[in-house]
Amino acid sequence: MQTGPKNLITDVAGLRVGNAQDIHVKSGATVLVADQPFTCGVTVMGGAPGTRETDLLAPDKTVQKVDALTLSGGSAFGLDASSGVADALRTQGRGFQVGDQNVPIVPGAILFDLLNGGNKDWSDNPYKALGSAALDAASDTFDLGSFGAGTGCTLASRKGGLGSASVLLPSGHTVGALVAVNALGDASPDGTHLWAAPWEIGDEFGGRGIMPQAPTAWPNTKLSAQNTTIAIVATDADLSQAVCTRIATAAHDGMARALVPSHTPMDGDLVFAVSTNAKPLENAASDALWLGHAAATCLARAIARGVWAATPADGDLLPCLK
Amino acid sequence: MQTGPKNLITDVAGLRVGNAQDIHVKSGATVLVADQPFTCGVTVMGGAPGTRETDLLAPDKTVQKVDALTLSGGSAFGLDASSGVADALRTQGRGFQVGDQNVPIVPGAILFDLLNGGNKDWSDNPYKALGSAALDAASDTFDLGSFGAGTGCTLASRKGGLGSASVLLPSGHTVGALVAVNALGDASPDGTHLWAAPWEIGDEFGGRGIMPQAPTAWPNTKLSAQNTTIAIVATDADLSQAVCTRIATAAHDGMARALVPSHTPMDGDLVFAVSTNAKPLENAASDALWLGHAAATCLARAIARGVWAATPADGDLLPCLK
Repeated sequence: MQTGPKNLITDVAGLRVGNAQDIHVKSGATVLVADQPFTCGVTVMGGAPGTRETDLLAPDKTVQKVDALTLSGGSAFGLDASSGVADALRTQGRGFQVGDQNVPIVPGAILFDLLNGGNKDWSDNPYKALGSAALDAASDTFDLGSFGAGTGCTLASRKGGLGSASVLLPSGHTVGALVAVNALGDASPDGTHLWAAPWEIGDEFGGRGIMPQAPTAWPNTKLSAQNTTIAIVATDADLSQAVCTRIATAAHDGMARALVPSHTPMDGDLVFAVSTNAKPLENAASDALWLGHAAATCLARAIARGVWAATPADGDLLPCLK
Repeated sequence: MQTGPKNLITDVAGLRVGNAQDIHVKSGATVLVADQPFTCGVTVMGGAPGTRETDLLAPDKTVQKVDALTLSGGSAFGLDASSGVADALRTQGRGFQVGDQNVPIVPGAILFDLLNGGNKDWSDNPYKALGSAALDAASDTFDLGSFGAGTGCTLASRKGGLGSASVLLPSGHTVGALVAVNALGDASPDGTHLWAAPWEIGDEFGGRGIMPQAPTAWPNTKLSAQNTTIAIVATDADLSQAVCTRIATAAHDGMARALVPSHTPMDGDLVFAVSTNAKPLENAASDALWLGHAAATCLARAIARGVWAATPADGDLLPCLK
C-alpha cells in the first residue's frame, strides 16, 4: 500500500485544511474546506457526541453538499468554530443559495478538553475566532500533533493530537483521513507499540512494529469525560451522500483498531465522510468496499500519527509518546 | 483477564443456546433463550442486513424484553427460524401478554450461505423447523464451529463457524458473546495468525500468537455477497434497553478487530446485546464502559473461536483454518 505524496487528507485534490490554536487555553480548531461544496455523510458511534448540522447529513435530507467542516476543542463551546467559519464564508459569497441569500453549511464536531491544564478562564468564547482563523490558514499542507483541534488532546496516559494520513487505491482513487485524537482509551497497549501498527506504512508513526505479546491487564482509561475522537475521511471517488455515510461507518473500524477502548459511553466518537466527486467509480459495489476499507486503515494510521506527532507544552498534565 | 467456567455465552446465568443444522443444505440455526424474558438492544453496522423484530428493540419502543433470539443461515429464508421459535414458545405459554393472547418476541438475524456448496434445492423452506429444533436443543452447553448458524459459514479464504466466549469482570459481572462468522473479509492476515490474537485468553483459539509483521497487500475478500457476521453479546449486569444498545455499538469494535475488512456494504453485520438484569451495577458510568469493552473483546475472541472450531464436511468449497 502506498501513501499519497503528502500523506495528508489534502492528497485528495481540492481539499485544504487550516489550524488555529490558543496555547494558553490549550485548545484550538481545525477546518476542512474546498473551493467547491463537497458531498458529506456522517456516522456517530460514541455515547457523548457534540455536533452541529449533522442531521442534515442524513441521505434523505435535502442538502447533500457542505461548504466546510470543523473539528474543535472546547466541548459545546467549540461549536462556535463553525459559526466563525460560516460567517467568514458568507462574506466570500459561499453557501447554499436561497433567494438572494447564501447560507454556508458548516457541520462541526467537538471534543472535550476543558480539564487539560489550559487556562479556561475566558470571558468571551474564543472558538468563533479560532474557527475563522483556521479557515484563513487553510492550505494543502498543515501541522500534525499539538495544533488546531489537536492542541489540547489527551489519551488515558499521554497526549493525543491532530493526525492525518492518505492512501492510493488500485482503482486510482485517493483516500485521506484527518482526526483529533482525544480518547478515553489509549493508542498503545504497552507505552511503546501502537495498536495501529499493523496498518503502518513505512515508519510514518515511528516504525516501532507490532506488539509481540497480548496485554494481560484491563486497559488504561481516563474517566474524567475528558474524551472524544472526531474524524473526517475523504476521497476523490464520486460518491453519493448515502455511500459517504456507509464509508463513515466503515471508517469507525479504524478507530476501533487504533484506540482501546473506543466508542465508549463517554466518548463522542464520530466520523464525517467526504467526497469531492471528482473521479467516477469503476465498479460501484467493489469500489465502495475498498474505499471503506481504505478509510478504516487510513483513520487508524492518522490516529497513530496524531499521537506520534504530539509535542510537550507548558502546563501539560500528561507526557508525549515520543 | 479470566473466562467464565465454560467460556461460552451461557456463563451468563440463565441463558441457554441450541443449535440445529442440515448438513446436506449446509446451513442451520442457533437460538438463544432463557426461562424469563431478557432485555435486548441491537446495533446494525453492516450495509446488507437481514432482520426480524429489530425495530421494536429501539429504546423508545414499547417492548423492552424479548423471549428468544435467533441467528440463522439461509439469507431472508432463514428469518423463518424465528417463526419456528415463536410458534413453539407460544405452545409453552411464553410471550408478550395482550389480553388472553401471548405473542413471543423473537428477533432474528440472518447470514447469506446460499452459495456455499450445500444442496439448496429444497421445496419447503427448512428454517422454521430448524428454529424449532434449535429451541428444543437449547442447553447451557453447545457446540462451536460447523454447527447451528455456523454450519455453512465462510470467510474470504476458509470456513467460518459458530463461536462463543466469556469473561469475568472485576465488578463481578459476567459478559459473553455468541457469533456466526460469515464475513466478506478474513480472520487472519497470513493464514496462520488471527487478527483477534491480542485478545486471546490462554490458547482458546490455538495460541498461535500475534502476527509479527504488518501485512503489505490489500486483504483477501469474497465479493459474492456470501457474507454477514451476526452476533449476540450478553451480561448479567442490570442494563436498560438503551444501555444494551450502547453495549451493542461498543461490541462492534470486536468485529472490527477480529475481521478485516469488516462492516462492508455487502455484510449485514449486527450485534444484539442482552441483559438478564440479574446483578445491579456498582457505578453506572464506569460499569457501562467496562461492559462495552468486555463485550468487544469477548466478541473478537468468539469470532476467532468460531473460525478455529470449524470442521470439514462433504462438499465444502473452502478449507478450515485448523
